[in-house]
Amino acid sequence: MKIIIGVDAGGTKTEAAAYDLDGNLLHTSISGFGNVLIHEERALHHIMEAVDACQSALSKTECVHLYMGIAGYESSLNQQLILQYFKNYYKTKVDIVQDSIIAHAASLKGQDGILTIAGTGSVCFGVHDGLQKMTGGFGHLLGDEGSGYWIAIQALKAMIKEEDRGVAYSSLTRTVLKELGQTSVQDMKDFVYASPKADIARLVPVIVKEAEIGGEKALQILREAGEELAELTWNAYKKLQYKEEEKVAIAIKGSILVNIPFVQEKFTEILRQRIQNVQFITEDISSTAGCYYLAKLKGETPSN
Amino acid sequence: MKIIIGVDAGGTKTEAAAYDLDGNLLHTSISGFGNVLIHEERALHHIMEAVDACQSALSKTECVHLYMGIAGYESSLNQQLILQYFKNYYKTKVDIVQDSIIAHAASLKGQDGILTIAGTGSVCFGVHDGLQKMTGGFGHLLGDEGSGYWIAIQALKAMIKEEDRGVAYSSLTRTVLKELGQTSVQDMKDFVYASPKADIARLVPVIVKEAEIGGEKALQILREAGEELAELTWNAYKKLQYKEEEKVAIAIKGSILVNIPFVQEKFTEILRQRIQNVQFITEDISSTAGCYYLAKLKGETPSN
Repeated sequence: MKIIIGVDAGGTKTEAAAYDLDGNLLHTSISGFGNVLIHEERALHHIMEAVDACQSALSKTECVHLYMGIAGYESSLNQQLILQYFKNYYKTKVDIVQDSIIAHAASLKGQDGILTIAGTGSVCFGVHDGLQKMTGGFGHLLGDEGSGYWIAIQALKAMIKEEDRGVAYSSLTRTVLKELGQTSVQDMKDFVYASPKADIARLVPVIVKEAEIGGEKALQILREAGEELAELTWNAYKKLQYKEEEKVAIAIKGSILVNIPFVQEKFTEILRQRIQNVQFITEDISSTAGCYYLAKLKGETPSN
Repeated sequence: MKIIIGVDAGGTKTEAAAYDLDGNLLHTSISGFGNVLIHEERALHHIMEAVDACQSALSKTECVHLYMGIAGYESSLNQQLILQYFKNYYKTKVDIVQDSIIAHAASLKGQDGILTIAGTGSVCFGVHDGLQKMTGGFGHLLGDEGSGYWIAIQALKAMIKEEDRGVAYSSLTRTVLKELGQTSVQDMKDFVYASPKADIARLVPVIVKEAEIGGEKALQILREAGEELAELTWNAYKKLQYKEEEKVAIAIKGSILVNIPFVQEKFTEILRQRIQNVQFITEDISSTAGCYYLAKLKGETPSN
C-alpha cells in the first residue's frame, strides 16, 4: 500500500502521521521539538525519529510523499541542504513548508480561507484564489500581538506601571507575584530575562482567572488580545482581495484563541462586524492532516 | 598623596579615573565592557585593567577609596563575592553601586535631584531628602521606553504595519531598509533577531534624519520618546515627594536625550508644564566624577 507521511515539527514536539491515499490515518508518532531555529541538528534528529517510527509501525507500505511543516524553516539558511538531506535519506518525494501552511491546510481541509494562530506567538495565514498571504509572525521583539507571550508581557508592564507610579499593588499584580513566588515587581524582572518565552506565556491562566473573578485590567488585556488578533486577520483578509459578499472561512488554532472565551468573543465580534459572510472554524485538527491535503494537491491521487 | 579612584563600568567600556581629595582629575584609563551581566569574568578583568592602569600612571599615591559604578551589579547574584574580591586585591576601602547612581552623583554634583538617562536603554534615578527612587530600567522586553532601542523598534513596528496592511512602503521604511541593505520588511526581521540591542539602536540616526526632512512618522516616534522619558521622570518626581514650590534639578544623560532636539524639546516641554520650579542640567560630565562626590560623602575629606 502507498502512504503519505505528514510531519508537524514545532517548538515543543514533532508529530509524524501516516495516511493512506484516501486520507485515512494509519499511524501517529511523537518525538521532541522540530523547530530548526532552536537547534537544527537535534530538530532534524527528532523529525527522523518520528518518521522512522511511523514507517517501522507499518509493514508492506511505501511512503510516496513525505510532506513536512517545519517551524523556523522559512528563516533557516540551510533550506536546500535540509530538503536534499531528507530526499537522499528517504528516497521519496519530499516537500517542506513553514508549519503555519500545513496548519492552514488542516483546519481548512485544503480549501481557501484564513487561519489565525495564537499560542505562545501569533501569526495569520490565508489562501484565496491562488493568493497566499501571511500577516504577523514577527516574533516577540517586533510582533506576536495577542499571543500568550504578549498577554503575559502586557500584564507585567501594567505591574511595572504601578511600581513606577508608587501606587498600591492591584489584585492582578498580587496574584501574578504570588504565582511567581515573589514579593516585588523588581524581582519579577529577573524571571522575565531568565525564562524562555513559553514559560512567560504560562502566566496566562493566572490572568484569565483574574478576569473571571472580575479583574478589570486582566479583562482589558484579554480583550485587547482579541482585538490584535482580529486586526491581524483583517489585514490578511484585505490582502487576499476577497470580494465584499464572498464567503470567508476563518479557522482558529492555539490555546489563546481556542480556549479563552474573552479573547475569542472579542475576535469573532470584530470580524463579524467587518466581514459580511464569515464562518468560523474552531475544530482542532492535527496539522499533519494538512500535509495529506497538500500532498494530494501535488498529485498523490487516491485509488492506487 | 591620597587619591580616590572612580570607576564607571558600562556595557561597552570601562572608565577609571583618579582624583585627588580636592576633586582634581589626575588620570583616566579606558578598557573594555564592565557590565557583569554580559560576562562577569571578563567584566571584572576589564575593570581591574582600567584601575591598574590608573595606579601605574601615578607614582607616590595611595588609593584610599575605590568607588565603582558597575552596570548589572544590582542583578548579579555574586554581589558580595565581587565586593570582597576587590577589597582583598586592592586592600583599600571599596564601594560598588549600580552605574546609574554614580551617573546621578556626577551630573548633580552629589546634590539632590533627578537624572534621566536615555542611551540604548532608559532609566531614571532620583535623590531627595534622603529618599532614593528609581523608575524604569526594566530592560528591552519590559521597558526601556524612550531609549534608542525603543525608538528603533517603534520604527520597525511601523514598517511591519505597512507590510501587514499591504500598503506602499513609506519614506521611513525605504530609508531604514536602505540603511540595512535590505529590500523587504521580512528580511528586516532576521536583522533584529540576530543583532545585539546596541546594533538595533544604531538605526536612530536614520530615523532622526528622516524627521529632519519632514518625515511625519519619524517625528512622531521621537516626540513619543520624549513623552515616555518625561513620564518616567514625572513618576520619579512624585515618588521623591517634592513639595510643589520646591526647586527641582533634572539632569539628562545619554545620546537620545542629549543629542536629539526633537526628544529633548518634548521632554522639557512636558516637565516644565508639570513642575513649577524646574532646572535642567544638560552638561556632560564623566560618571567617574560621581564616584568622587560619593566617596567624599562617605568620609574622604580633603586637605590630607
